[in-house]
Amino acid sequence: MANGRYNLIPNKDFKIRTIIKSLETSPIRKIANTAIGKKDIIPLYFGETDIATPSFISQAMKDALDAGHTFYSANQGVPELVNIISKYSSSLHKKNIPPSRIMVTSAGMNALMMASEAIINPKDKVICITPVWPNFMRCIEIMGGEVIEIPLIYSDSDNTWQLNIAEINKHIKNVKAIYINSPNNPTGWMMDSQEQMAILELCRKNKIWIISDEVYERIVYDRNVAPSFLDISDENDLLLVVNSFSKSWAMTGWRLGWIILPENLLHIFEKLNEFNVASPSSPAQYAGITAITDGEDFIKTMINKLDDSRKLTINYLNNFSQVILPFPKAAFYAYFKVKNITDSEKFCFKTLTDTGVGLAPGTSFGKGGNSWIRICYAKSPDLLNQAFEKLKPALT
Amino acid sequence: MANGRYNLIPNKDFKIRTIIKSLETSPIRKIANTAIGKKDIIPLYFGETDIATPSFISQAMKDALDAGHTFYSANQGVPELVNIISKYSSSLHKKNIPPSRIMVTSAGMNALMMASEAIINPKDKVICITPVWPNFMRCIEIMGGEVIEIPLIYSDSDNTWQLNIAEINKHIKNVKAIYINSPNNPTGWMMDSQEQMAILELCRKNKIWIISDEVYERIVYDRNVAPSFLDISDENDLLLVVNSFSKSWAMTGWRLGWIILPENLLHIFEKLNEFNVASPSSPAQYAGITAITDGEDFIKTMINKLDDSRKLTINYLNNFSQVILPFPKAAFYAYFKVKNITDSEKFCFKTLTDTGVGLAPGTSFGKGGNSWIRICYAKSPDLLNQAFEKLKPALT
Repeated sequence: MANGRYNLIPNKDFKIRTIIKSLETSPIRKIANTAIGKKDIIPLYFGETDIATPSFISQAMKDALDAGHTFYSANQGVPELVNIISKYSSSLHKKNIPPSRIMVTSAGMNALMMASEAIINPKDKVICITPVWPNFMRCIEIMGGEVIEIPLIYSDSDNTWQLNIAEINKHIKNVKAIYINSPNNPTGWMMDSQEQMAILELCRKNKIWIISDEVYERIVYDRNVAPSFLDISDENDLLLVVNSFSKSWAMTGWRLGWIILPENLLHIFEKLNEFNVASPSSPAQYAGITAITDGEDFIKTMINKLDDSRKLTINYLNNFSQVILPFPKAAFYAYFKVKNITDSEKFCFKTLTDTGVGLAPGTSFGKGGNSWIRICYAKSPDLLNQAFEKLKPALT
Repeated sequence: MANGRYNLIPNKDFKIRTIIKSLETSPIRKIANTAIGKKDIIPLYFGETDIATPSFISQAMKDALDAGHTFYSANQGVPELVNIISKYSSSLHKKNIPPSRIMVTSAGMNALMMASEAIINPKDKVICITPVWPNFMRCIEIMGGEVIEIPLIYSDSDNTWQLNIAEINKHIKNVKAIYINSPNNPTGWMMDSQEQMAILELCRKNKIWIISDEVYERIVYDRNVAPSFLDISDENDLLLVVNSFSKSWAMTGWRLGWIILPENLLHIFEKLNEFNVASPSSPAQYAGITAITDGEDFIKTMINKLDDSRKLTINYLNNFSQVILPFPKAAFYAYFKVKNITDSEKFCFKTLTDTGVGLAPGTSFGKGGNSWIRICYAKSPDLLNQAFEKLKPALT
């Protein structure tokens, strides 16, 4: 689908792979694109806070530039950063995660692309627990693999989401991997250790990869860090854990993340880093050292702010008569059902036109999202108040 | 092959794709890895200058950080940068290359990875003109494609390299694309417009993609810019031109580049950007604007320095009795044959041990490099003098 911004050459066959031509355009991008150049938009569609990167982290990048850190780094990353990530992860997850299990990447996104390059052969099937931000599903398809979506089940009794273990069991023998994003974008669902243990045992038994996308592990409100597959696994497990500087330290525009992998695979992933981006940005890596070393106070302050916004959001949405909101435990999204809609994309286009509030349609996150909407509440209470007052007529 | 740095788990099958397990480790990396931690190494193996990024470009990144440009950018790139690249390319290549044909990428490397994702289906064949830096050949293999190497022919009569048009003709009907890197790493070969026209006509006739890696287009000594496929093509051609900030503005560690593509494909490549790295580093993109706008004097000064190093290098190598050096027209490498060697990797290991000078073996750049060596001469005359004096016994 062309995006309508340019005059395209008609009937020209550019010999692009069929799968690439038909890759789904994110409905979020489609809606956001219609807002470009418009005034008075309240953009709640993208997954980022309105907090710029704190200045102590920017200062570290400035210092790195002054120190001449502008050359290629090692494929694994700057050794000092690798060591700091090792200490940080080991401390958070209460076990030794040595530098030999860590590779720095050009954001969590490229770590996921490399994960799919490493394991997905054409026609390989991968279970993806949905709703989920769609990008890893597209990585699987780029590599010629097939996605098996297994949706979380909304449980009325405790107003939250649950894994559909029966359905996972049914497919597990036929897949190469299972992809789980917890804390979850878009639902705010957070797996507990018991659920992780169940998945780990199932995957061990069937020799299935777990690709665990834990980029929101610090965006939690009732503890210091979310339960992680790192807590319960060992270095022998077929486990890739993807993390990022984007969310924890408000560094979305920096493109810096890391992957924790079995030590045996480091040399393979170093090669993939080489052929994907060569090595992540050198000055950004030096800033990453400072983010981890000096960033805990920033995280605490940010979480307090986000929790205020979360409470405000829950309060508003629970009072809208058309809305059902499963409790958003973690991350910075509210994912809610609107009883009287059946086409969330249409609803989001109309809402943008009528009110200027930019929402993300549930169809962005897998099948079954037709009545669902995501908002990113990582904004100021003032902006959120304005947005919800504008949304009130459509949601009550 | 494990790199020997860590204790690996024996006999563990990690269910990695066969092609990924067997991806060739760069012989350059193998040699450079053995030098880690050693003193008094003169590293001429990597493809970067010893010039740190100039401070006016670093200052632009600092200003971007202060201005709060730390959020995600559009998939196409920051519009101001896209527009500047459009003006710059249009001016260099004397034709209108509109912003709609440009996408900013996380370095030339990721542009090449996306090019292979876009067009290479499993078993698709791609002609690669060798010797060439090997990374795009590995991208083809990651996508399940097959590389057909067609080496340049060394011509005694004019002491330079020539395309093997007969061999290209023989294979052209069976391939999806032809990959050419000119100005070339490692040989310093530079295609002329006539050769480009011959290739373009052949590809037009057979509907074959040209993937033109032009990252050294400004590293030229007898003109302002190298001949480019952009000069002779139109927007209907199956042509992807990859470029980078790394070489022209000494920004290797920044990971910033761009791709010029048929306008019809922009929306497809925007999706690939999203699923590879989402968008290139935002603060780096703002620095890119300044690099292009204010960087011409820097390029001139750098080229003058490089030309001094080139002359010094040619002078030394031509006086070594064991060396045959095809004239290095462009880029910043000398690629030479050593008459009395048949295993360039072994020679480079031995040279590193005996003299501390780090060279790149010809086997890094495709088949047939067993008697060949690359040095990167983008170093100070002082360092080069030291290196050549140390190399003299082995090369005479």
